[in-house]
Parts: sequence; C-alpha cells; structure tokens
Amino acid sequence: MRNSFGNRITVTLFGESHGEYIGAVLDGLPAGLNIDLDFIKDRLNLRKGEKEFSTARNENDDFKIISGAYNNFTTGSPLCIVIKNQDARPSDYGDCLTSLRPSHSDYTAHIKYGGFEDFHGGGHLSGRLTAPIVAAAAILIPALKAKGIEIGSHILRCGDICDREFENVKEDISALYSMPFAVLDSTVKSKMQEKILELKKEGDSIGGAVETAVIGLPCGIGEPYFDSTESMLSHAVFSIPAVKGIEFGLGFDFAKTTGSKANDAFCICDNRIITSTNNSGGINGGISNGMPIIFKTAIRPTPTISKEQNTVNIKTGENVKVAFSGRHDPFIVHKAVSVINAVTAITLADLLSENYGTDWLVK
Amino acid sequence: MRNSFGNRITVTLFGESHGEYIGAVLDGLPAGLNIDLDFIKDRLNLRKGEKEFSTARNENDDFKIISGAYNNFTTGSPLCIVIKNQDARPSDYGDCLTSLRPSHSDYTAHIKYGGFEDFHGGGHLSGRLTAPIVAAAAILIPALKAKGIEIGSHILRCGDICDREFENVKEDISALYSMPFAVLDSTVKSKMQEKILELKKEGDSIGGAVETAVIGLPCGIGEPYFDSTESMLSHAVFSIPAVKGIEFGLGFDFAKTTGSKANDAFCICDNRIITSTNNSGGINGGISNGMPIIFKTAIRPTPTISKEQNTVNIKTGENVKVAFSGRHDPFIVHKAVSVINAVTAITLADLLSENYGTDWLVK
Amino acid sequence: MRNSFGNRITVTLFGESHGEYIGAVLDGLPAGLNIDLDFIKDRLNLRKGEKEFSTARNENDDFKIISGAYNNFTTGSPLCIVIKNQDARPSDYGDCLTSLRPSHSDYTAHIKYGGFEDFHGGGHLSGRLTAPIVAAAAILIPALKAKGIEIGSHILRCGDICDREFENVKEDISALYSMPFAVLDSTVKSKMQEKILELKKEGDSIGGAVETAVIGLPCGIGEPYFDSTESMLSHAVFSIPAVKGIEFGLGFDFAKTTGSKANDAFCICDNRIITSTNNSGGINGGISNGMPIIFKTAIRPTPTISKEQNTVNIKTGENVKVAFSGRHDPFIVHKAVSVINAVTAITLADLLSENYGTDWLVK
Amino acid sequence: MRNSFGNRITVTLFGESHGEYIGAVLDGLPAGLNIDLDFIKDRLNLRKGEKEFSTARNENDDFKIISGAYNNFTTGSPLCIVIKNQDARPSDYGDCLTSLRPSHSDYTAHIKYGGFEDFHGGGHLSGRLTAPIVAAAAILIPALKAKGIEIGSHILRCGDICDREFENVKEDISALYSMPFAVLDSTVKSKMQEKILELKKEGDSIGGAVETAVIGLPCGIGEPYFDSTESMLSHAVFSIPAVKGIEFGLGFDFAKTTGSKANDAFCICDNRIITSTNNSGGINGGISNGMPIIFKTAIRPTPTISKEQNTVNIKTGENVKVAFSGRHDPFIVHKAVSVINAVTAITLADLLSENYGTDWLVK
Repeated sequence: MRNSFGNRITVTLFGESHGEYIGAVLDGLPAGLNIDLDFIKDRLNLRKGEKEFSTARNENDDFKIISGAYNNFTTGSPLCIVIKNQDARPSDYGDCLTSLRPSHSDYTAHIKYGGFEDFHGGGHLSGRLTAPIVAAAAILIPALKAKGIEIGSHILRCGDICDREFENVKEDISALYSMPFAVLDSTVKSKMQEKILELKKEGDSIGGAVETAVIGLPCGIGEPYFDSTESMLSHAVFSIPAVKGIEFGLGFDFAKTTGSKANDAFCICDNRIITSTNNSGGINGGISNGMPIIFKTAIRPTPTISKEQNTVNIKTGENVKVAFSGRHDPFIVHKAVSVINAVTAITLADLLSENYGTDWLVK
Repeated sequence: MRNSFGNRITVTLFGESHGEYIGAVLDGLPAGLNIDLDFIKDRLNLRKGEKEFSTARNENDDFKIISGAYNNFTTGSPLCIVIKNQDARPSDYGDCLTSLRPSHSDYTAHIKYGGFEDFHGGGHLSGRLTAPIVAAAAILIPALKAKGIEIGSHILRCGDICDREFENVKEDISALYSMPFAVLDSTVKSKMQEKILELKKEGDSIGGAVETAVIGLPCGIGEPYFDSTESMLSHAVFSIPAVKGIEFGLGFDFAKTTGSKANDAFCICDNRIITSTNNSGGINGGISNGMPIIFKTAIRPTPTISKEQNTVNIKTGENVKVAFSGRHDPFIVHKAVSVINAVTAITLADLLSENYGTDWLVK
Repeated sequence: MRNSFGNRITVTLFGESHGEYIGAVLDGLPAGLNIDLDFIKDRLNLRKGEKEFSTARNENDDFKIISGAYNNFTTGSPLCIVIKNQDARPSDYGDCLTSLRPSHSDYTAHIKYGGFEDFHGGGHLSGRLTAPIVAAAAILIPALKAKGIEIGSHILRCGDICDREFENVKEDISALYSMPFAVLDSTVKSKMQEKILELKKEGDSIGGAVETAVIGLPCGIGEPYFDSTESMLSHAVFSIPAVKGIEFGLGFDFAKTTGSKANDAFCICDNRIITSTNNSGGINGGISNGMPIIFKTAIRPTPTISKEQNTVNIKTGENVKVAFSGRHDPFIVHKAVSVINAVTAITLADLLSENYGTDWLVK
Repeated sequence: MRNSFGNRITVTLFGESHGEYIGAVLDGLPAGLNIDLDFIKDRLNLRKGEKEFSTARNENDDFKIISGAYNNFTTGSPLCIVIKNQDARPSDYGDCLTSLRPSHSDYTAHIKYGGFEDFHGGGHLSGRLTAPIVAAAAILIPALKAKGIEIGSHILRCGDICDREFENVKEDISALYSMPFAVLDSTVKSKMQEKILELKKEGDSIGGAVETAVIGLPCGIGEPYFDSTESMLSHAVFSIPAVKGIEFGLGFDFAKTTGSKANDAFCICDNRIITSTNNSGGINGGISNGMPIIFKTAIRPTPTISKEQNTVNIKTGENVKVAFSGRHDPFIVHKAVSVINAVTAITLADLLSENYGTDWLVK
C-alpha cells in the first residue's frame, strides 16, 4: 500500500498541509495499551522545535483520537488520530502552481499527479504530515520504554558546527529527552542558533545531520534479506522529507578501513556476550546484536528560501527569477530529531512484533 | 512477507550457502517478456568478480528457470529460478557453531533462530544468496533498457583509493557495462588491486564504496512518504550483506551547505524542464525529477578474515582467539557493484509498475 | 494489514458504532478522479434501507472528505472520508458487557480483546461500519460505469418468499438502481415487507439472500490461485457482518450435476467469443470470461432480537434469560444489497487495477 | 502479491502442469519446527485419491525440500519444496491452443496472458498445483494437532448421493483421517463410486460437495472486517480450482429462518461458555467462538470430459464440436477433500499467528 508503513503494526498517513485535518491510522495494535494523551501532546510540542528557528506558522496541533480507543486504552481496532490545521493559509500559494520552488516537490508532484495535486504548501508532501507520525509513535514509545528500549537523537551537525557523538548512550538519551533543540554538548547550541539566525536573515536555510541511538533492543530483531533492521529503518527514515543519507555504525568510514580494524570482537562480560567495540552500530547481518543501534541521518537545507533563485514558471513555461515569500523554516534538523525518533519507534515496534507477536506491547 | 521485496513485482528469495539449491521466485511479471538466458548467465558471471580478488569457492552458477516461462517468454505465472550449489563444503564449518566470527551474522542468527539455523557459511544470510537476486534482475534489465532506463555502478573507493565520480553519465554507464572490476578511471584499478592482494596476503579484508547512476527514469516515479524512491532503493540496497550506508546526491555533504547553494535551479532546456545542477540526485520530495538518479553505498570490509581475532566460543562460553581458515573474499565491493545494479533494477521496475501497471515491460 | 482490503486500491476502515466518527481511508487512487458528492450521499441514503423495516437509530450519515481531494477531484494522496455518528447512545448498552447476545460478536470480541473492546452496539464490529464502505465505493462506482461496468443486487429471498433471478441482466440492473428495497418482481415486495413487519412485532428477525450481477467486466480479470475473482469477491463479501454463504453461477447446484450439463459451451457470436449458457457465473479458472458475473449471498437473520433467549451473563458467570431492548433491525438484507454492491465495486476496481494499473479510473 | 496467500505464514506457489517442477515457498515459519517427511508423503498420496476414480496420469509426487530446513527442522528461512513432474505429456495438448475446453480456463488464461500462457493441461492453472499446497500444509498440520486443532473433511455429496453430516465431530475427524475416498457413512461409498464409474464410461464427470470441520480452535481467532475467519477461509478455498460455493454453519439455510430459531444460545457448561447449538459454524462476527468450525464447499464437475461438446476453435475462429481425449478425472471431490484440509490448515495457522506470533508452532 502506497501510504502505509509496517508489516505488523501499520501506519497509514493522510492529509494535506493546508487542508482541514491531517491524520494517521495505526492498525495492528493489541487491545489494552494505555494511551497517555499528555505524552502525545508533549511529543507534538517537541516536534515544533524552538519557535525562533522554525516556521512562523502557528499550529497548536490539537489532536483527537476518533477510533480504536476507549477510556484511554486501545480497543484492538484501528486507531485513527486527527490533527486540525488551524493556521492554514492556502491563499499564500495562489490559485495555481506558478514558479517551481527549486529542489522542492512542486514539480515532481505536479508531473506525478497531472496538476490535480493540492499544491498549497506541498499538499500531502509537506513536512506538516510528520505531525501525525509523531503522534502515532507517541502511542508506542511508552510500551517500548516499559521493555527497556529507549531512543534518542541529537543534532550532530548544523553546517560546519558539530555536536559530540554519543558516548554513554543511556545517559545521553536521558539528557536529550525533552530538548526542543537537542544537542549533547551544550556549548554548541548557541553557535548553531547564531548560524541559523544569520542564514534566516539572509533568506537562506542550512542543512545538518542527526545521530540516533537505541538502547535495550534485544539481539535477534530484523530479518535477513529485504527486511533487515537497516532496510526497515532506512525505509522509514527516508520517508521523512529532506533526508538524503543514512549510515549505521562507522557507515561511510567503513569504506576506508580493513576487516581487522573494523570488526567488533565478541567477548563474554558478566555472563553476556557483548562486543568490545560497536563499529557495526548494533547490527550484524541485518539483525540486531544487542549492542546500541547507532545511525546518522543527513538532512538537506530546506529548499524553500526567500533568496532569489533561478527557476521555471510552469504556467507560462518561462525561465524566471523568484524569491519566495511564504512562511518557512531556516533549519529543520531540530524538528527532524523528533520525527526520526518517531519513525524509529514505529519501525522497531513493528520488527519486534514480527518476532514476538504484539502482546509484548501490553504485558 | 519476510523474505520478499516489491509491491507490484515481487522477489522472494530462498536457499542456503551450502544447501543444494538457492533460488528466487519473481512474481507479478506480465506474460510475453522475452527472457535472454545468455544475459542472465553474463550477469551471474559478472557478479563473481575477478577471481584473484574473490573467494576461492568455485561456482558455475548454472541456473534453471523451472516455472513461469515457456519458449523463453514469461507466461505471467510466478517465475522460479534455481541455481545449484556445486562447490558447497559444509564440512569446512564443522558440526556446530563454535567460534563466532566477529561482525558476522553467526551470533545474531544463532540467537534469532535458537540454534536451528543452517550456520554453514552463514546459511541463508550468506552473500551467496545475492546470485538469485542478480539472476532475477537480469530478467528485468532488458525491459528497462528498452524504455531507455540504464543503470551503472562503479567502485568509488577501496580503502583510501578513489575512482572519479560520474561525469557524462550515459557514456560512463556504457563503459562500465561488462567490467568485472568496474572503475571509471582505469588508472585506479591496478592500485586498488594491489591494495587488495596485499591485504589478502595479510589475511585481512578491506571496505569500499560504490557509486550508482540511473538514466532515463521518467519524472514522477516514487511515492511521497513511506514508498519514496529513496525509501525503496535504500530498503533494497541495505538488504545486501555488508552495506552500512547510502546517500543520494550530495548526501552527507548536504549537512554542510545552505539552501541557496544546494538547491538545483529549474530551467527550460530544449522544451524540457531540467535542473542545472543535480545535487538532489534526481529525486525531489521522494519522487524522481527526470534527472539521473545518483547514489553512493558504503560497504564494510568482509568480516571473515584469517588474521587472529578475539571472540567467543559459543559452545564452551569462553573468550578465545581465532584465525578463520574457510574460503573468503578479501574485497567484495566489485561484486557488490553487480548486486547494487540488480536491486536497483528490481526496485525501479517495481516503482514504475506502481505508476503504470506492468504492461510497459512488454510493450 | 488487519483492517484493510485490496492490493492496488486499498480501503482501511476505522471507527466504532457509538464513537464520534466512523470512516475509511482509500489509498491508491489516481489523481484526477472526479468525486460526485451527491452520488455518495445517495448511496449512503440507499444503505439505510426503508425506515419502517430498519433500525430506529436515526443517522444522517453526513460525511466529509478530509484529505486526498481538492476541488472535488482526487489528488492522488490517500483519501480519508469521515462520517459523524449523530444518534449514538452508548448508554443503551450499559457500563459494561453483561448478557451476551446469542450469535452476536459480543462474546468473541470480548475474548479477543480481553475486555478492552468498545462493546457498545458491537463497537468496531457493528454493521454501522458498512457506511464508510458504501461511501468509499461510491467514489469508484462512476469510474466503473464509465468503462461499462455496472453492478446490481436484489433481495433474492426473505425467509420463504423469493424474488425471480436475473434475466435480462442489463435491464434488471438499471431497474434496481435506486430502490431502497430492491426486488426484481415488484409483486414480492409487499409479501416480504408484511413478513418482516410480522416478525418485528414478534420481536424477531428474519434472514435472506441476495443475488448480484456485474456486466461489462472484460475477460481476463482475476488471478489463478489465491487472488481469483471468486477468492477476492468472497473475501470482501464475507467481511460484511451476517454473511454466511456465497455461491457463483450454479453454486451448490453444481454438486448435483454432470460436466456435460454444467459446462458452458463457447460459441462465436457477432465476432465475439461468448458462452451460450452462464452456469459458471462469468468466471472460469478464477478469471473473468466476459459474461456477467453472477453470485448469491446468504444473510443470517439479525442476531439481536427482543424475544427472550437463553444466554450467559458474562459479568456474573450465570446462565440467564434475556430479551434485548436496544434499537435493531428485523431485516438487514435490503441494506446488505447496498453493501454487497459496494464491496463488489471495490474488489473489481482493485482487480482491474492489478491488470491495468489505475489510470483506467480517470481515462 | 498475486500468487501468495497468508499474512504471517505465506505460501507462494509456482509451476505448471507439464513443466519440470511444481513447488511452493513457505515463508514466516519459526525455526525449530520438526518436519515429518513421511507425513508429507502420506498427505500427497491421499491427495491423489483412489486411482480408479481419478486421472490416469501417474505421478509419484516425489518431493524435495531445497531450502529452509536442516536435519529435518525448519531453520526460520524460507522453505522451498519442489515436486518433480514425472508423467508430464505436453504433446497430448498439441503445439498450440485450438479448441477451447468449455468452462475450463483455456480461454480466460489465453486472453489474460495474450497467448504466452503455457496452455498444456492448464499450465499454472491446473489442479496439479494443489500438490505443493498439500505438501506445504503437511508441514503445519502436526503443529496444529499438537495444539489440539484438528481438521477433517468428507465427500458430503456426489451428484444426488449424500453422506451424513458431521455428528460427533472429534470422532468423525479421526475416522476420516487417512481415507482416500472420505465418507462418514460407509454405505454411501460404493453408491458414489458406481455413479462415478458410470459417468466415466459415458465420458462425463460429476460434481459434489465437501463438508469440513475443525475442532480445538480457540475463541478469538479472525479479524472483524476484511480478515474475518470466513473471509480468509473462503479466500483460500476459492483458490482451489472447481470450487464454486462455500457456506458456514447453516449457510444458505439461514436465508429461510428467523433470528429466534437460528441464534445459538450461550450457556455455561463445565465452567466454559459454549453454545447449545452450532448454527453459526463456530464463528460470530467473523471471529471464532470456540465451537467447531463447520463449512461446506461446492465443487463443480470437472470441465474436461470426453463427451462431444460445442465450442470454438480459437486458432481458426470457428464454432466446432469436440470430444477431448486427454487424461482427466471423472470426479475430483475426493481429491478436493485433501486440498480443502490443506488450505484450511494454512489459513488457520496464519490467523493463529496473527493473534499469537509464530512461536506457538514450536512450543
């Protein structure tokens, strides 16, 4: 199915940036999972990032679970969650598509959907659709945590400014828990934010990278060939707009090294088999090995900028120069942090259910 | 389904490294697709790489299509292709799993399958299983070519030695067509090969990277959210053993740049809309934009090496030092080139069929 | 996915009988399909049946398409349609499940969902959920009709009172088009209705059968083994509550006859290959043969009745006698007519798209 | 996927009637399931029926498991089972399709596959393909039995001759266990067989019906809407060639009765909730209720007969009269018994795994 993800626990996404509602259907949940509405609200708030570094669009993200829950417990029926678009302004985008935003989906969606797409603000292809993803994941995250599985991400890079990498993964994840602008080294935060404000002033945007860690995932999760942990996580992560790269463990640095240096030696430690290094990022042969899952995600700079650019007016068929004026984000990496955590939670919940059925979510 | 890939055209993989047969079922093919047996044979031969730089295992890869074809045309029924393992030597691996190969799937498979896995040479998780993937893709590649869609990959990097990147993509793809050790800059080949032989002598292995290009893919392929072109390609590519990273277009370099520099300006050229740069790697908003698809894949060094390593004997539960003696590859990146081309072909054939149905394959 | 149907065009259903909304997500639609809101309203009204013979629950079935459409054309993104429950009265069902309605899903849902189900009026398992199915189908029916494919159903039987079978299929379908109590022989209508009112008075209900015909379906639709036209239609039809049997063409009468009598002879007629009889109900080897598809569906009497019955109080664990007092239908077969038409439309649209892609819906 | 069935445990079928091999891939099995090769052989033998009443084609059904098993235990990887066609005689069917067998898939497959189908003996659409289904099910049946779930079917009807229905279901299933011509009332066997031989002599065939019972299925299996137990079983059963009807419990007799008569009263018996009658055939609201599952299947007479029939020669485009001379079955209902048991086992194993994961198969 085109707009669904997951084999055992499935998310189907719907809605448009400037429509009345956006939402998701979460199917395959067991009955009896307690839903924490405040936690969902918190996660939606975190996704908005710090206001100063984000779009001027003002959305409360008021959500409503319209099916699949009764007295704040899942019923085992499909759970539909809807979020109202309160600050939609389709008129910002005019009556029809004119100048294509470079590197945006304006053009590809227009060709794919033959002009029938709801082009306002990217329509279905907007980053706004990540809100229901975050809401859906917020239903699963407490169940993962109850099994000792925790997920954390931070802004590893904003242009040339880098955060430190994960060190003590458990502590680092805890520290990141409710940061709207998540960095491990607090000294880099202001540097990044200065950079962003500088670019915002110039009408430009800047890219970055996110590092994600997962602890507590048992050994044996993921399928060899096709539904490997890396395949499923990358599938989910690349569905987030603006993601252009992913690497696990050493990632592209593996290309430069030898087997004898890259291999993670096994050893017995406290009667458990662990590896003395974690270059593999917690995955061998596509299957989790019990060490922390570590991956990095590359995020392109937001394509919508107000600096003047060369492009094409698709209505007139002419080369034009345009500076876009709508509301947009100079930086989306701090928001991507929430969404990467969300799709990671959904993917791991799905892979765990592939192994164990779904009862683990409630027992 | 755990061991299948694709929504419209589906590949299901089966077999073990040292079993009697390995194979694949290709389902969803239209009737009337001409099958070129020689081309399949060629592609299987290419996958073996140059002998000197590969495993000593000697496989003819004799294949047989046992269903779904009649007089060398597809019938529209599921096509099953089997390849006999002729040089299987399960005894090389002993009676049961003992010392875990560091960074190999020995351990994760053992935990996942509770000791019932066929552990000889990795069993189902072996790189040997990429042979039926290559065979299945070789049925689709001529149909893609007939539509003007061509795929090529080269060894971008072997340790510190780098090939040049794609320049004139069409010509470059042609040049790579039947190279068993595919590089664009012929001067780097001998340097890479010397490096590999040196590491082979030391009982070590080395990693690398592959760059892949696709030309002729029309604009509009791929789905927003979840089944984006990047999601589907990365899903397929990460199912290849040893892949640890993927990036599209500028990839991780997007993290360091601004929107104004990274954006690909649209322009009208010969009455077609193209982009003047291709930093996006041919994909905007998860949907192909008509420019070449460009991506890079990171390949870890083969974990099986004959140098002594620290590990655990899972039978005795003791920390041990071991040097592995089985047949293995000092370098797999030249073989990965074939497999990446294969999964790219399968993924694109599937995504095209999502848009157009499957009749394009035969018309 | 548990609560979805269809491979190419997929319906995901959500909602509960006495929740705030019920709805469906329709995914896989091409962009540019014109949506006729009045037609959707008409179909929803027809589903309600004639008031006198139906539940006293009073629902307007006001619906809203909250995504996937713009200016009454599909955008190619998932289309979500929601229907407000206006006359929900969960209090009719008490605080918790007590006496199990015999032959109802009260018990099976309670065991399946461990007491977390929304049991009011059957919750997700209610016939109320057929409304979004009818709405979703009403988006596809005009596209099928534009290709010459028409679907009609009538009440073949109400207890012992039988309607005539289809004769001139095309005319019969037209005649049935907007009948809320659909019969081919107008003289049986009042007999059936008298019977129903009599049973209603007694606090009882009555079963029946529906005959369905489809014309215009081209030869070649359906897959051999597993996704045969019969497999897919029966899968869809059995998802309608109260359906307990289905037969195609002669159906169970095939059991009594010989090959020489049952076979449908092929003949050339007006340069087309047709069959001189249609005992096969338009399907050979699971694939449509170009003749009308004909099938019959058995519908059990509504299990909820107000006559006293023996049952168990699941709260106290005692055998009890109960007469149920909620609002319910003495007869649902006239309403099932709409729903069978709807799932038939969805199934055939999906199977056609398997053959042709989805562009046929808009071209 | 077109030629696969099942969500958690998936069967993919391949092969043609007169090709070299037929087979199936069974995916989703847990590791550690013991495979009883003799039991598979027994079930394949039973499927052949009693020789005198079946096709003259002589197949040993020698099978080989070529992947997914090691030392007769499943490994958790896809299990591929192949069966060699030893008595294939494609020359019986000539060089190309000429006279269409009435009510056979000759015509529909020809149109669907545009003349590229392997038409010999029906190719992929042949009843021969039920052999790998039976083999695949024989891997699951012992695991179901270990959980107390047993499946049995008998020839309920052959033309006008009827067997008695199930009474003491457990005993009846045991009695049917290894009958190649399965009837409950031994006195009807010879009557049926006389009838069949009489029709065979006339070059004709005869239809029939099968009744199936399942005991031991726990309450709570099956999903409301779309993947109901009835939807999934009917989907699977209609994939068997020649099936034209299915009914659960009272089935079409529900149409003639009232709620008060049809409802199955709940009662407490030995501290368990059961129903005092089983008109519902063990399913309420699409979900199993713990009582025996009971359904009946209508089987059409084999369309291939040697009596003269009117048909069309598709090569010449002329109306012709033809008597077919190949090897065929005068009666297939005794063989259908095995196949219905097989698809029932596969479907229930899949539905159980939907509820519980797949570990129940090995624990």
